[in-house]
Amino acid sequence: MALSDQQLDEIRSARANGTATLRPCAPALEEILFEPIPVLDHGFLRVIDYMGDDAAVVQAARVSYGRGTRKVTEDRGLIMYLMRHWHTTPFEMAEIKFHVKLPIFVARQWIRHRTASINEYSARYSILDKEFYIPDEAHLAAQSTVNRQGRGEILTGDEAARVLDILRGDAEKAYADYNWMLNENPDSTVADPSRSGLARELARMNLTLNTYTQWYWKTNLHNLMHFLRLRADSHAQYEIRIYAEKMLDVLRRWTPLTYEAFLEYRHGAVNLSRTALAVVKKLIAGEQVSAETSGLSQREWRELMDVLGRAQDGEGRRE
Amino acid sequence: MALSDQQLDEIRSARANGTATLRPCAPALEEILFEPIPVLDHGFLRVIDYMGDDAAVVQAARVSYGRGTRKVTEDRGLIMYLMRHWHTTPFEMAEIKFHVKLPIFVARQWIRHRTASINEYSARYSILDKEFYIPDEAHLAAQSTVNRQGRGEILTGDEAARVLDILRGDAEKAYADYNWMLNENPDSTVADPSRSGLARELARMNLTLNTYTQWYWKTNLHNLMHFLRLRADSHAQYEIRIYAEKMLDVLRRWTPLTYEAFLEYRHGAVNLSRTALAVVKKLIAGEQVSAETSGLSQREWRELMDVLGRAQDGEGRRE
Amino acid sequence: MALSDQQLDEIRSARANGTATLRPCAPALEEILFEPIPVLDHGFLRVIDYMGDDAAVVQAARVSYGRGTRKVTEDRGLIMYLMRHWHTTPFEMAEIKFHVKLPIFVARQWIRHRTASINEYSARYSILDKEFYIPDEAHLAAQSTVNRQGRGEILTGDEAARVLDILRGDAEKAYADYNWMLNENPDSTVADPSRSGLARELARMNLTLNTYTQWYWKTNLHNLMHFLRLRADSHAQYEIRIYAEKMLDVLRRWTPLTYEAFLEYRHGAVNLSRTALAVVKKLIAGEQVSAETSGLSQREWRELMDVLGRAQDGEGRRE
Amino acid sequence: MALSDQQLDEIRSARANGTATLRPCAPALEEILFEPIPVLDHGFLRVIDYMGDDAAVVQAARVSYGRGTRKVTEDRGLIMYLMRHWHTTPFEMAEIKFHVKLPIFVARQWIRHRTASINEYSARYSILDKEFYIPDEAHLAAQSTVNRQGRGEILTGDEAARVLDILRGDAEKAYADYNWMLNENPDSTVADPSRSGLARELARMNLTLNTYTQWYWKTNLHNLMHFLRLRADSHAQYEIRIYAEKMLDVLRRWTPLTYEAFLEYRHGAVNLSRTALAVVKKLIAGEQVSAETSGLSQREWRELMDVLGRAQDGEGRRE
Repeated sequence: MALSDQQLDEIRSARANGTATLRPCAPALEEILFEPIPVLDHGFLRVIDYMGDDAAVVQAARVSYGRGTRKVTEDRGLIMYLMRHWHTTPFEMAEIKFHVKLPIFVARQWIRHRTASINEYSARYSILDKEFYIPDEAHLAAQSTVNRQGRGEILTGDEAARVLDILRGDAEKAYADYNWMLNENPDSTVADPSRSGLARELARMNLTLNTYTQWYWKTNLHNLMHFLRLRADSHAQYEIRIYAEKMLDVLRRWTPLTYEAFLEYRHGAVNLSRTALAVVKKLIAGEQVSAETSGLSQREWRELMDVLGRAQDGEGRRE
Repeated sequence: MALSDQQLDEIRSARANGTATLRPCAPALEEILFEPIPVLDHGFLRVIDYMGDDAAVVQAARVSYGRGTRKVTEDRGLIMYLMRHWHTTPFEMAEIKFHVKLPIFVARQWIRHRTASINEYSARYSILDKEFYIPDEAHLAAQSTVNRQGRGEILTGDEAARVLDILRGDAEKAYADYNWMLNENPDSTVADPSRSGLARELARMNLTLNTYTQWYWKTNLHNLMHFLRLRADSHAQYEIRIYAEKMLDVLRRWTPLTYEAFLEYRHGAVNLSRTALAVVKKLIAGEQVSAETSGLSQREWRELMDVLGRAQDGEGRRE
Repeated sequence: MALSDQQLDEIRSARANGTATLRPCAPALEEILFEPIPVLDHGFLRVIDYMGDDAAVVQAARVSYGRGTRKVTEDRGLIMYLMRHWHTTPFEMAEIKFHVKLPIFVARQWIRHRTASINEYSARYSILDKEFYIPDEAHLAAQSTVNRQGRGEILTGDEAARVLDILRGDAEKAYADYNWMLNENPDSTVADPSRSGLARELARMNLTLNTYTQWYWKTNLHNLMHFLRLRADSHAQYEIRIYAEKMLDVLRRWTPLTYEAFLEYRHGAVNLSRTALAVVKKLIAGEQVSAETSGLSQREWRELMDVLGRAQDGEGRRE
Repeated sequence: MALSDQQLDEIRSARANGTATLRPCAPALEEILFEPIPVLDHGFLRVIDYMGDDAAVVQAARVSYGRGTRKVTEDRGLIMYLMRHWHTTPFEMAEIKFHVKLPIFVARQWIRHRTASINEYSARYSILDKEFYIPDEAHLAAQSTVNRQGRGEILTGDEAARVLDILRGDAEKAYADYNWMLNENPDSTVADPSRSGLARELARMNLTLNTYTQWYWKTNLHNLMHFLRLRADSHAQYEIRIYAEKMLDVLRRWTPLTYEAFLEYRHGAVNLSRTALAVVKKLIAGEQVSAETSGLSQREWRELMDVLGRAQDGEGRRE
């Protein structure tokens, strides 16, 4: 993880300077404010700023749904109620801003969530650092044989070694050539006066997709949870999921009641289709139901059996 | 303006309780945090929370466009540059939340700005207070004779008096009947046990559009300025413009550099069409240009002459 | 329902003039294009235009997830898969535009869905027609005694009659006074030359919230289904739900496969919380679970028993 | 430009099959529907579908602002009026969908416009083709010496040749290694049975940013013009501007009146700041104004002189 010395100085001085505010505070989040949380080999996540907390959600809900007493148990109940019934606007009333360093191919997945504000480091204006994501061997997986978008077994031996060599070698070669084409020294002076150097906005096209970029990413609590529901999920690609998992910790510090409701009604919840619900009713009534009589596809049947924690039939579990 | 005693207590206690935070603060905004700013006869505007300040804009821009020194003069120059060149994302990095009390017909204009989060007092769940907007006589205007959406001269004498009587009388009658249909006492007990009372979600349809509602309205600095550009404009209806004008003061306290840039490049700026630009070039070159030779419509010609502060021809200014 | 003669002429002529297009068509939707579908006493819903159909969803998904064969059975399977796994972007690739006439208090609920484009009839520029929503007696309900936002029993006898009289009387009085204040004849000439007339943007504030307005409402297939999930739900207020139910018919005509998937995975599906899932597993295993041992609140327990269609305990069903 | 034979077949058959529709059509756009418009060395742009035309804008505006006659001259005047006064919602009533093939680094700029629906070819599911953008020599520019984000002079001779060799060589090497790591034949069979092959979602990180991707991109007329205002501008990077310029042609075919208004009030218009407006007034009045007395920064002064087409002082025009 590479924060520059200047950035580290800024973090130290920002953390040294408390100010008085009349705004609501989230003490457990203040504890880690500005501090980089390492992710992957060179990436990180930092909370830069925030607005509101669980009380902001409750306050907004009470504007809409009327007033009441303010005990913590009631706040908790109200937040559980809002989450259960998909009342989303009160969760839009709190906001958070992250500074994230991440590989470009992860950034391309991430940015598909359009309901956030983003300022990304621009390689049109500035020069990217020489930092690439090289997976840990434990995450160097083969293509899944049963799922078009998943990973299968971990590569081993010569193939693993060769893959790591390729990833490292190609990224370094591409970066060295990027650097040569730019023709700039680290202090922005010209490296070789006999050459003009290629414009930054062009030279960047030579970089590989595992090069690290960074951005400020600001979103509200509702949209953060939407992001986490999709990206802290086991179907998400490991390289983005690991960021989402760190953000779950941030959510717990920031809005502990909302975090609890999120685990109960989103992250740990399941959606049963109309047909799956009918199957569940029959199972509870003690009726026999098989994949064939269920009305579900083979795949949905297996998914439902998984969700219900039931032993699979002879074919075993393939997916 | 009617804040309940409970709300006033809350404001007093919120303003009494400073906490330490590591987050950036806007001191001039903290001075008025939570305090109601009166608008119209019963409305108000309060800043409830905020995130970031001018420095947040600068910081985000520097992530995108590279680093530099941090003197105030440079921050000012950067903010002016960003505003001039329509770089919008850095201005999305600061956020503000208002509590607004406003007449329903104003709320219906306001909500057309979709890029905000809103929690409105719900008349499905709760009972609206007996408060209506009755215009001050100075704002009781006739329809414009030259503009389909504007106001003309101020009503006077009997007609003005009659209009005010109607507005007050119809609103009071409608509210009294709303109240009767609800069949609830102020303490939520049943008023007349011989009647069932009409559901709140139905009874509310009897209210007039000048009844006051209230909401939390949260948006970012960029979208706030977009709102202000349209609603603090002389073409906006007075009843929403007066809210926008109070928000301009808030903007000045919150982000003074951005405020200055907003006045320079948005609020006080003009957009010259391709044809109007050609006219301006000719005028600078000392050529004669008339409405007929300008290539502009009569209306655009008058608007351009207005913008340039030039005397009108014999017909005078009609709009 | 009041379309003007001019509007009816336009519908007739629009329906008479087919043109050839290379774009995908939805034949069952073309059958009802432009035709008003009556809703409530004076409202309607018309499909004005659309873009794409089920094939547009499939085509977009295949850009993302790769190519394959094109049989209908496979299209159906792909759409079911996309819906089940919350792949939303392919459903954004089809678009629809409605013309809706609706009471203002319904419009205020509706507009909270921000992901649509809206052009509403403006009472700043034009004069609203004399049309109000007066509920049918069968929908004149009391406030629910168990639910703060619901309806209870139907009003009867004198109270019902009196409520209808009030709603009709207050709306008519408010409209007549609106009309008097405007001081305009139907042909836009001045009614009483001795008076100036009040500006339209002011006079409108005297109208009651059951006055009808109209708008064009354009959204994509994904956002339409989000709207329908919330508004075609039994918890939605009747006066908006009835619009949503008519739109379900439109959805069936427009994108029959998506409609089928929507019923299966959204409209007829249930979300089980982490704790509710644990209860379901125990019930399937034949274990005894009661409200007390379930870990659920009383309210959630009742909701779960409802969903599972199980008989309630002695207290009966209260909500 | 590489459309597969299958895609070309599909285009031919789609263009052969007209259907009757009652919807409004844009004949000049139908002429090029589905046809690829070449952009850069391997990219293209195709209109896949659309909804509405100039009449849709007019129709929506008339819902809002009242009825009138329907002559073409009046439609033109209304569209000019809407554009001049920033009435945006009527332009949201028409929609268009493109299929675009573009280099990844261009896609990363493009996607920052969040108000569109996108389905991108997924390299998690599928294998990217071996196609990279290699700039034409005429566009191989040095970094600007006066502008941190612009281009300067064109590279020549050995340096140009070497840069092209690098771009081509690194992209080919990275792609060959991507291919080796995947260990798949073109028909999806395993290439070397002794190896597992790396998961697609990982292998893609080895590709360079000039690799081509493709997506469906759907937006409304208003947001399309916002995109074009920024990206068909001389400050935009050539590689995205060339796409925007082709889209301007599409706009002209689709909505000719809106296109005309766009050129007049956006593309060919200028924004004068408050201070610049004061300068213009003085110049028209025949007063002497210099950079020093103008109140403008040196840079803004030069920009204003450029806009007004006035000769620069001795230093010449540097930017």
